[in-house]
This record gives sequence, C-alpha cells and structure tokens, in this order.
Amino acid sequence: MIKTAVAGATGYTGAELVKLITGHPDAELTSVTSRSYGGKNIADIFPSMRGVVDITCQDMNPDELKGKVDCVFLALPHKISMGYAPLFLENGIKVIDLSADFRFKSLETYEKTYQKHSAPDLLKHSVYGLSEIYRDEIQKADLVGNPGCYPTSLLLPIIPLVRDGLVRTEGIISDSKSGVSGAGRSLSLTSHYCEVTESFKAYKVGSHRHVPEMEEILTAHAPDKNAGAETAIQGNDKMEAEIQGNDKVEAEIQDHHRLKPAIAENDKVAFGTSDGNVNNIKITFVPHLLPMSRGMLTTIYAGISDNATENSIRETLADTYRNNFFVRILPEGMFPDTAHVRGTNFCDIGLWVDESSKRIIIISAIDNILKGAAGQAVQNMNLMFGLDEATGLKIIPGAI
Amino acid sequence: MIKTAVAGATGYTGAELVKLITGHPDAELTSVTSRSYGGKNIADIFPSMRGVVDITCQDMNPDELKGKVDCVFLALPHKISMGYAPLFLENGIKVIDLSADFRFKSLETYEKTYQKHSAPDLLKHSVYGLSEIYRDEIQKADLVGNPGCYPTSLLLPIIPLVRDGLVRTEGIISDSKSGVSGAGRSLSLTSHYCEVTESFKAYKVGSHRHVPEMEEILTAHAPDKNAGAETAIQGNDKMEAEIQGNDKVEAEIQDHHRLKPAIAENDKVAFGTSDGNVNNIKITFVPHLLPMSRGMLTTIYAGISDNATENSIRETLADTYRNNFFVRILPEGMFPDTAHVRGTNFCDIGLWVDESSKRIIIISAIDNILKGAAGQAVQNMNLMFGLDEATGLKIIPGAI
Amino acid sequence: MIKTAVAGATGYTGAELVKLITGHPDAELTSVTSRSYGGKNIADIFPSMRGVVDITCQDMNPDELKGKVDCVFLALPHKISMGYAPLFLENGIKVIDLSADFRFKSLETYEKTYQKHSAPDLLKHSVYGLSEIYRDEIQKADLVGNPGCYPTSLLLPIIPLVRDGLVRTEGIISDSKSGVSGAGRSLSLTSHYCEVTESFKAYKVGSHRHVPEMEEILTAHAPDKNAGAETAIQGNDKMEAEIQGNDKVEAEIQDHHRLKPAIAENDKVAFGTSDGNVNNIKITFVPHLLPMSRGMLTTIYAGISDNATENSIRETLADTYRNNFFVRILPEGMFPDTAHVRGTNFCDIGLWVDESSKRIIIISAIDNILKGAAGQAVQNMNLMFGLDEATGLKIIPGAI
Amino acid sequence: MIKTAVAGATGYTGAELVKLITGHPDAELTSVTSRSYGGKNIADIFPSMRGVVDITCQDMNPDELKGKVDCVFLALPHKISMGYAPLFLENGIKVIDLSADFRFKSLETYEKTYQKHSAPDLLKHSVYGLSEIYRDEIQKADLVGNPGCYPTSLLLPIIPLVRDGLVRTEGIISDSKSGVSGAGRSLSLTSHYCEVTESFKAYKVGSHRHVPEMEEILTAHAPDKNAGAETAIQGNDKMEAEIQGNDKVEAEIQDHHRLKPAIAENDKVAFGTSDGNVNNIKITFVPHLLPMSRGMLTTIYAGISDNATENSIRETLADTYRNNFFVRILPEGMFPDTAHVRGTNFCDIGLWVDESSKRIIIISAIDNILKGAAGQAVQNMNLMFGLDEATGLKIIPGAI
Repeated sequence: MIKTAVAGATGYTGAELVKLITGHPDAELTSVTSRSYGGKNIADIFPSMRGVVDITCQDMNPDELKGKVDCVFLALPHKISMGYAPLFLENGIKVIDLSADFRFKSLETYEKTYQKHSAPDLLKHSVYGLSEIYRDEIQKADLVGNPGCYPTSLLLPIIPLVRDGLVRTEGIISDSKSGVSGAGRSLSLTSHYCEVTESFKAYKVGSHRHVPEMEEILTAHAPDKNAGAETAIQGNDKMEAEIQGNDKVEAEIQDHHRLKPAIAENDKVAFGTSDGNVNNIKITFVPHLLPMSRGMLTTIYAGISDNATENSIRETLADTYRNNFFVRILPEGMFPDTAHVRGTNFCDIGLWVDESSKRIIIISAIDNILKGAAGQAVQNMNLMFGLDEATGLKIIPGAI
Repeated sequence: MIKTAVAGATGYTGAELVKLITGHPDAELTSVTSRSYGGKNIADIFPSMRGVVDITCQDMNPDELKGKVDCVFLALPHKISMGYAPLFLENGIKVIDLSADFRFKSLETYEKTYQKHSAPDLLKHSVYGLSEIYRDEIQKADLVGNPGCYPTSLLLPIIPLVRDGLVRTEGIISDSKSGVSGAGRSLSLTSHYCEVTESFKAYKVGSHRHVPEMEEILTAHAPDKNAGAETAIQGNDKMEAEIQGNDKVEAEIQDHHRLKPAIAENDKVAFGTSDGNVNNIKITFVPHLLPMSRGMLTTIYAGISDNATENSIRETLADTYRNNFFVRILPEGMFPDTAHVRGTNFCDIGLWVDESSKRIIIISAIDNILKGAAGQAVQNMNLMFGLDEATGLKIIPGAI
Repeated sequence: MIKTAVAGATGYTGAELVKLITGHPDAELTSVTSRSYGGKNIADIFPSMRGVVDITCQDMNPDELKGKVDCVFLALPHKISMGYAPLFLENGIKVIDLSADFRFKSLETYEKTYQKHSAPDLLKHSVYGLSEIYRDEIQKADLVGNPGCYPTSLLLPIIPLVRDGLVRTEGIISDSKSGVSGAGRSLSLTSHYCEVTESFKAYKVGSHRHVPEMEEILTAHAPDKNAGAETAIQGNDKMEAEIQGNDKVEAEIQDHHRLKPAIAENDKVAFGTSDGNVNNIKITFVPHLLPMSRGMLTTIYAGISDNATENSIRETLADTYRNNFFVRILPEGMFPDTAHVRGTNFCDIGLWVDESSKRIIIISAIDNILKGAAGQAVQNMNLMFGLDEATGLKIIPGAI
Repeated sequence: MIKTAVAGATGYTGAELVKLITGHPDAELTSVTSRSYGGKNIADIFPSMRGVVDITCQDMNPDELKGKVDCVFLALPHKISMGYAPLFLENGIKVIDLSADFRFKSLETYEKTYQKHSAPDLLKHSVYGLSEIYRDEIQKADLVGNPGCYPTSLLLPIIPLVRDGLVRTEGIISDSKSGVSGAGRSLSLTSHYCEVTESFKAYKVGSHRHVPEMEEILTAHAPDKNAGAETAIQGNDKMEAEIQGNDKVEAEIQDHHRLKPAIAENDKVAFGTSDGNVNNIKITFVPHLLPMSRGMLTTIYAGISDNATENSIRETLADTYRNNFFVRILPEGMFPDTAHVRGTNFCDIGLWVDESSKRIIIISAIDNILKGAAGQAVQNMNLMFGLDEATGLKIIPGAI
C-alpha cells in the first residue's frame, strides 16, 4: 500500500487526486493539505464525498510526514511547489509535481517564462511525466514534473511523427480548446457561469506559457536533435541526455487558463522569439475556452514529409501506442469527441491526410483534469512504484 | 461470477448497465440485445467504450440464454418487457425489469394507466425494487420491478415519515426536476439541444404516469393501511401481504419523460380521480425538465403531525437509513445538490421544518440514471444474489 | 426625450438598463456610474456594445446631474440606494430604485430584515413598482421601489386570485427556480461555471429575504385586509392606504441570490415567525438555482375556495390582464417555458386545477433580468413619464 | 413597406427571419410557408411569439403571391430552392435564397458538390450575398444566393488580405467552431441534448460542402485571378465578370451541419482534389461542434507576405470595413467572443501577427443564425430595396 499525501487538495486537480487515490486498490490517502480550508474535513468542502472520504486538511509539514508517506502530489501553484519539493525529497518522499516548476531542463527558459527558481539543481534530476513517452525514466524517478494539459494533448500524437520524420517540423499548428475547469476553482470573471455559457473565445493568443513546454519537448524528439543527443550521451541516463540538449521545456499548470484582459498582457511570452537555434521547433498555439466543465480537444495541422502517407502515419502511431492502454488510435474516418474520454485517463487520436496538399489534420481529445493532470499523475505514481500503470485508473466510461 | 444479460443495451439506461456490469467485480456481461443496433459492437455504438467493452448486440432469445445467463436486465419499453419476462423466468433466469410492467400489484391500476397486461399472474409474484425499503423481499425475489426515478426520489425520504405518522398524508406535494437523460436517447424536439439549453419548464402537469406508482406504494405504508395489512396476513410473506392490500400502482420508466405537446395530452392519467377509497394517499406531482443531462431533485412539501418536530423527523430518517450506504441524511442547514450525487448511486436528503406552521420541506437528490434506474437495478441484483448491495457501486465522487 | 442616468451600470441589471435605454425611442442615456469601473467606457467593459454604446462611467454626483437628468435608475445594493435616493429627489430627479430599500411600507419589517433605514420618511412616499398592479400609483410617483424578481413571478399570477377570494390564503407554496444571473456579476463560488453546470439545488431554504416582500404585498390584497384598509383611508391615496395597513413588504434585489454556505446562515429571516396577526398571509417559499444564465419559473401550489373552478380562475386572470401586453395567460393545457420569455418583458402564466382535491397549480415564467428587474424598471419609467408602458420594450422574441 | 414572404418559416433560420421582419420598420410579413406545419399559426409553433406574431403557415404558391409580395426568403433545403426561385422571379418577386442553390457560378462545381441543377441559367444571374463585399451587385440584384455561415466567418476577414496580397494563398487554414443551431431544428442524435452538452468534436473532416464555396469566392479575389478577370470583362457587369472567371463554388446552408456517422461518409467532397488550375486557392477547413446554441468562431492561420506587417494588415482591414456598421475590427490585443455578437448581425475580427515566423492568426466571430444566415439575408433585402443596410438590424447587444 502506497501511502500518499496531496498538497493543495481543494482545487479541482487536488480533489480529483483525492478521488483517484481513495478508489486506488494499492494506495491510500494519508494526508491532505489546503491553504484555504485548513482544519476542515474534505467531505465538508466537497459534500459529494460525504460518507466516502474522511480526512481533515492540515498545514503542510514535510518533516512530519517523514516515514509516514511514500509519495506526495503537489497540486500547488508554480513557485510554491519549488519550495516544498526539496524538503519532501530530503525526507525520502517521492514527489509528483503538477505545477510548472519541474517540467523544464533549462533553468534559463524556466526563469524567462516564470520567475527565479529556488531549486535549480533539481531541474536536471526531475523527469517530464508524459507517461507513455518517458515511461522508463519515470519508473526510476523520485521527482516528476507532470505535464500541462495542453502539452499532453499535442505531444502524445505529434511526438511519434516528429521522431520518425513523418511531419515537417516547421509550421506545426496546435488549435486547442479547453473546458473551464482548466482555469481552476479560484474565482475570476472569466469563470463566471454567465460569462461562459453560450460563449466561445480564444485567449492568450501568442503568449501562452505552455508554448515553451511544448516546443522544447518536441525539439528533444526532432530527428537531428535526437541524433545529437544520442551521441552526446556519456552517462547512463538517456532521458536526461535527450532533454539536456534543449532548453525550452516549461509551463505552468495551475493557472495557465486564468484569463487576463486581452488588452493588458503584461506577462507575454512571445512565441517565435527564437534564440536563433535553427534546430528548435517552433509551434503556433492558440488556446480557446469551451463552454463546458471538463475536456480538451486539440486540432493539429502540419505538413507531412514527401514519403509520408496516411497509412505510414497511422501505422507509426499504432506501433508506438500498441499495448498502451490509455492511448486509442481511432480507425479511418473516426475522430475524437471530448465526451468519449470524459471522466477517463484516455487520449483519443484521429487523423486525416490530404495527400495532394501533403498536409495532415490530427485531432486528440483528453479529459483535462485526468490525462491532462490528476490521472496522468497517478499513472506516474503507478510507474514510480512498480505497479501496472493503469492500476486505479481503469474507469469504465459510459454513454453519457 | 454472476452471468448477466442486458436487453435494450443501447439506450442511456442500458448503456449505464453495460458500464456498471463491466466494472462489477462479481458479475460479467454475457449477452446484450438491441433492436436498433443488432449485429453492431457496443464499442462502435458508444465510442467511449472502445478498448474497454467488446460485445456484439444480438437478437433477444430467452431460450438460447438458458444455462448461460443467471440474470437479465430488461431496459425495454413497457409492454415489451411483459412479453419477455415470463420466458426468462421459465428458463431459470432472474429478471430485473426497468419498465413499468412489474411495478404494480393491482392489475386494474396497471391496465388503467397503461394497457392490457399479458402476464397478470406475475404481478403478485414480482417485488418492487426500492432497495432500501424492500431489501428482504428483493433478496428472495426472482422478478423485480425496478422503480421509476421520480418515485425513487419521493419515496425514499417520505416513506419513513408516512409509516411513522410524522407527516400528514393529505396534501403531499412533490415538485420534481429532472435532467434530460430521463427522456431517453430516442429523438424528440423536446430533447433537441437548442430547445433545452437555457430553458426550464414543467410538463405533463396533472397527468404523469408515475403518480399512480407513487400513490400506491405510499398508501401501502400509511399507518392505518399497514395495520389492516398486518391483520390480513395469512401466509408467511409479509411483504406480499403488505402490497396485496393496496392497489399497487406502477408506471413506465423508459419514456416517461418523452414530452408531448402540452395541448394534446391524449393519454392523461388524471391524478386525484380517486376510486373513493378514503384511505388512499393522493399526492400532487409536477415534473419539470432541467437544462442538464443527468440528475433529479425533488422538493417535497407536507404538513407534519401535531407531535412531530424537526428533531423527531430527522431522527426517524437517520434511524431508518443508518447503515444504508446509499442514503445520506444531510445535517441541519445542508441541502442536496444534484452535482453531489452525479455519477453515483446516492440519494441525498435534506429537510427543514417550519414548526409554527407545522409544515416540512424535504429535498432529495439522485442521479436519475443510477439510483433512479441502472444503479438501483444493480443494487437489486446484488441483493438477489447474496452480495453486499454496494458491490460494484462504490463509485468515488469527485469535486466536479 | 427622457434624460436618464443609470447608477451601477456595470452589473447585469445595470447593463440591461443601458441596453434598453440605448434602444428606447423616447429616452436617452445621459450618465452612467460604476464603483468598479470609474473612468472606463461602457464599450470597454462590455465589448458586445462596441460601436453601439459610447459613454464613460463616472462617479455618482446627484447635485451635478440636476437639470441634466429627468430620471435615475439605482441598480445598487440595498443600503447604498437609500443614501442616494433623497439627494436625487431633492434635485427634482425621479428615482426608480432596484434595491430593496424602497419596496417596504413598514419601517419595522425593513429594519428587521435588512438594517437601519436612513430615509424612513420616504417609505410611505415610494410606490411598489409591480407595474400591472400599481399602474395608477406609479404614474403619479417620483420614487418607485422596483420589485424583486421572485416576488414579481409569484405576485402577478396570485394577486388577482387572492384579491377575489379564489384561493385559500393559508398554505400557498412558491417553488421558484432562477437562472444564475440573478446572483449578479460579482464573483462567488456558487456562480463558478464548474459548480453550476449540470447542477441543481435549493438554497436559503426557510430564510430568503424576498419572503417578507411577497407576504406583505399579498396581505395587502387579501379580501379582509382590503376591507379594513378601505375603511381606514383618510386621504386620497388609495394605494398608500392599502399598503400602510401591512408592514412586511421588503426585499433586496442586488444580491439576494448570492448563495451562502447552507450551514452557516447567519442572516436568517425565518419565515413563519408571525407577529401573531392572524390576517397576515404566510407563504412557503423555496428558491432553487438553475444551470442557465437567465430565466425564472415559479410553480405555485394553493388550495382553491369552495366555489372556485378552473374556469372562474382562468377568467379572473384573463379579465385582470386583458390589454396588459406583458402578461400572457396561456390556454388550457399549455404551460410556460422560460425560453419563451427569454430576452423579453413578458410574464407567461399557465394553470391546472384539480377540482376533486380543490388544489391549483399555477406556473409563471419571466426573464429575471427583464420583467424581474430592468425591463419592469423601464416599464415603470414609461408610466411615470406618461408614455405607453411598452415603449422600448416591444422586443420581438425568436424561436431560440 | 416591403411585402415579404418567408418559405420554410419553421426552421431556426426561418423563424429568425419571421422575428426580424416583424420588428423591421420598413418591411412586413405577408406570407409564411411550412411543409411540416401547414395550417398552423406561427405563434402556436413558437409560443414565444404569442401575442406578437399572428400569421398562419400556408402551402407554397408563387403564382398566388404575385402582386402581393415584393420579396421572398427561401429558407429551404438545397434542391427544393432551385425549383421555386424561377417561379417567384417570373412573378416579379425578388428572391433571397438561403440554400446553396444559387451561391455558385460554376454549374460543374455545383453539380459535383450537390446534384443536377434544374435552373442552371440562373447561376450567372444570381449574386453572392456577402453583403459587405458584393454590396453594389446586391443592390441591383433580384436573385441573391445568401452565403453559408462558415464561408461568411472566413471570407469577411480574409478577402481583403487575399485581395491586397497581404497573405499567402497557399496553406490557409480555417479552424471553425459552430453552435448546434447551425444543424437546424430537425431531429438527429448529434443534436440530442445529452450528446451535445459537455461535448466537443470535429466533424466532416476533409469533406464539408462549404469548402468549394469558400475556395471559389476566395479564388475570385486572388490578385492574379482578378487581373485575368478584369481583362476578360466584355460587358458592363464587373462583378459578373469577376465571378465568371472562376469556378464559383457553393454549398448548402440548411443541413450542412447535419452530422453523419464519421465512418460512413458517402457524400465526401474531398478538398484538395484540384482540377489542376494552379491559380485556384485551396484551403484546409475543419468544422467543430460547440456545446452551445448559437455562435460561430473561426480561427484562421495563414502565412503573410514578405512585406506585410501587423500594422499594414490591420490598416487594410480597417480601411475595407470603415463605415461598415456590421464589421468590427478589434484593437490590438483584443479578440472576439461569440457572446459579444450573440443576437446581433455583427462580425467581430481580431488578429495577431508573429512577424518572426511571418504567420498571422485571425479570429472572427458571428452569430451563425444572424450574420451567418437570416441577419445577412435581411441586410441583403435592405440593399436590394434601397434602404440603409442596417435597417431593422440595429439590435442593441447586452452584457449577457
């Protein structure tokens, strides 16, 4: 039985972790913390859990949890996470961080996108928690930077195609649409029911903090980059080498949807402001806000290589994700629907190739709170503790 | 391992049964039937189930299932169910019928409300599947008439109060609000997205077929009726005696929401058209359609007896449902929210008594597809096969 | 051309006033104020109005508006309104107050329900702005207390029946359901999209501040009360006399939906705590929150008098509201739908009588922001300035 | 007073026409037809219109309307429209057709995309009703092919940029999202509330019939095409010449959203199957279905020309649409929201240029039923009858 703690248990991601661990056959919930609801029982904060979950929110105390907890989930805002992670690691507690603080290898990129990092040495130590892609590294890790939801929805379908040179790395477009829960449980006019219902819009056009995270993971998988990375490996950690080669891995999960007035974008992270490294993959990313609670759909546009066909692309994806329970490659003519993955840890992928114009349309769907956050975090915990990665996550989907 | 079949597996209730049985540790899905999708795999009809459920819809053949199936769920329209139930029973297969066909004890009431019954002898044999109330009888039953969702939401909170004489049996009002899924998956202008969103209305005012079902079960629990029923018991089946004594009423679950133009109500079943039996409880029931997919909330108004207080009522409910996992009596000042029971088999109950005017407001919430249909059906299956009634139904609720 | 000002123009009610006046053929918008957005143009706050409305929010200054403005709408929280109303009146500006501050005749009831009143003398002077009922008085008024949305939805259908003795005044129940916009534009967890969608619940059970407002207006129309009031009339203002006779009229419109945690209801105004006056009408009122933006439906239950029939009741309503454009009495078998009044100033009313049990079900629907707030306020302005009451309010409804 | 008829008045587009004409100061509704509701009054079909609209649906009879009607709106399915249009024209009645039947200049393209055309001679005679672009031609027209909603949302922002050579014509992507009302009022599982709410998906990927309509109008505005077209002009009708030169393409508005099972796409119109004309613009178009009733947002991706900048593009759009009431070019940093155009005839346009990668993101929002259908049709009627184009369309938007 894995003893777990959830820090930040009263946000939507934290609450989903509480739910998943409560239902997990090989894990149990030992401690939960909340800055807003200290001293209150989870079942009083979330009346749905009445009679099912019975645990009181405490103050965060890494020392006190020593020996009592095997694994902590940090569902905290970035900047806060980086302060706690080292304290847990020192106490022998494995850390799965759902903020942006440990998703990057490059200190420079992290600090340019967010702020000064207080635990820079841990960046190289942490593993990017995109479970299907970094499974081997995650199994050995004690610190995982869980991916953002937008990056997950783009990277799972596109990495195999970039890796095998089937799509052109210039001009990749990620037109993404997310449910409101991605913006978290805190209050904001953009999450007000009357502002969301019967409304659809883009936001943070040209400035979303998930862009560097996507670009640098993608760059790490670009054919030439990989080649370089492979030859550069001296030690025994292939994954670390892969990622060292690029320095743009980053993002922030907690409040990345928190819309700001479109006019006053002070914290812009302009994409396309390349550092001149011609090998770096640059993507165009536009996030949109859907009038629904949970679910994310990403429509990807890319050019395909001269020798690529719909068949070869479909086979590559099928090969990559064969025996990967949570990635479903849909047959020809079928495309994902967020409703079909709602409440599950699945990532559904459909595609169509216009061979005359050599362009591909790939569509992926995930539940932003599950495969995009808490579900993938538990999948990573399973890997880190030697369990089947689907343990506790085999949620049976329904019709509605 | 209980081998089960689901007839009518491609409606919303049927699909939920497929989901629940697939995730049930002690049951398995042996056969599914569908009139509309014969020959198609469930995962092709519901792409959410791809990779999780793999079973093909067949034609219904009770003889062929003999020896292969222990229990069949009939998620069929009324009239259709009554034709199949005897065939399954003859083949030694237990039947849980989700239509109205086996909810009534009184043939007369059934036929007045619906149509001629082709298996009238089975009415006395069948047990009304309100699990918490008829648990003992269900455990011994081989034919269960699973309750309607509206009756479930009214009866669970009110039966204990009627039984103990805490509320006055005249003038009980059930103001109920249901999500759209109650109207089923078949097409109708009243289920069209554009007609439902940002819309709220009452329907079938004064004529809903669930009224006889509610009234007659309630009447069976009225103090004087019980007294009469007790003295009338000759045999050893108390429950049957209880129910024989009153015109067991029933309705139809499959399409009871299927709204008809309010003007042309041909199939009105006027309530209040009492047969002159002064002991019969008459209720006022108004169903409303909520702009949401699943969930049901019923606000009940009743006068309380002279000696009743909020405390005595609260204690009666607490006593009745102590150790009943699926009924949660909320503490003073808390009231149910459909979101808190969504996706679960819970029935949440809150109440407020205005002692000066001697009136009570009781509010109950259920998920209409679960406790109101498929969930309660599986709960009944568990009882019929000697399992803990919560087996396979301990769905952990989340925050959203 | 009526020159108008809107105080509190950036809430939902204020913005609707801005919209209505902009489109009004005989009124113009001279000034708008906002505490939150001072100095900003309305079109920057509500981008929908770009190119259509061009006016900058200012600080409130009643003296400065003297001679420039004929009529001010106070879309302000209660307590704030009472401070400004006298200043406008002194400057010869007519006041339509949408808060609760001038809805009551009884100082005692107001202060018991809200707080100390700073302009108590104005209570007798103000007219309750239920347009169809108090039309004559409103035409002569310079201070109108615009009704709450819940009271409007109950009072329009029930007043004629109480007045004519067709319904029994004991045991009237108002089961009301409101869209989220009623809670205003300010931030609250209960207005968070993810908490509202696919959710339905009651709130403030037994303690809503609209109850005294409803009870006392109703009491003023009770047959015996009227009799007493008539004889008590000394002066020439029948309406004032009518209302003097009761002291329970009150409420608050701005934040009456602002849900509080059900457990900690500190500001409870228990209904049923009668002062012993046996003539006072007491109602049972339960408000519910609908997962939609705007719209309100009230289901009313009452006993009918011995000599009342569905026909006599229907005729009374038809007579009362003949030539009243905004009240539509639906034919037998038809019931209101909030979607049918959305975006309009209509109040639709349908009813059904169970003559055997002598009970009536009346259902009314309004748009809570229009007939429930801004629309009725403009209707009152039209009356106060001698215009056809429908001027600027003949919004043509569509199908969706 | 323009006397108008609406054929197909009981679909969502038809009903919106009824609403707009009822509120139009210079037009009146003389006749409405409906295949499904013949003999019924509009107010019985749409109870929202009770007391406001009073007209009975009749059978279609162009001869009988001669002399009684000046203008007919055909809100009919394609193929049906082409049969009626000539009969109205022969009777001197101007025709605004909302189907695809008169949007194309090229008979070949129409017949390849739809079916055999029964009035091919009228294709050259008809004018494409994109009001802002073809205003002069529309003013002289007696037959207008009203544009599809998707084409409107793409063409208004992109035509000026293509025309002035500011964007590259290869690789234009239109990622479009539409509310459910676009699929019409007829019944379909994909419009079932429970299938739409909390769901988002792409549909008809690679095969939507609006693609030829978009491509050929765009091609008509391509710089080199225009040059060719100009030289080809023999007669005095520049617009006709412009359009003759390219395979005017068209689609069908009534049921273009009517989703088919993604697997069995029999009526695919593969895009990219160029006829070898290198001048033809090819676009990539992916339509998506939003969980909301009305509204359409299109995110356009394109490469910009070497000399183009965000400023020059912004100025071109501002110049093109200066004094065009219904097109609002948003300032830098602001992007459209469907909620801001809901219920209006506006098209809002925002943009962002990544100058380093020479790519532009343009986002447009319309109400699909108004600027995308009925609103633009009335705008065209205004033009055809010499009125200000905004007459009857100056709907004041609100905050919600």
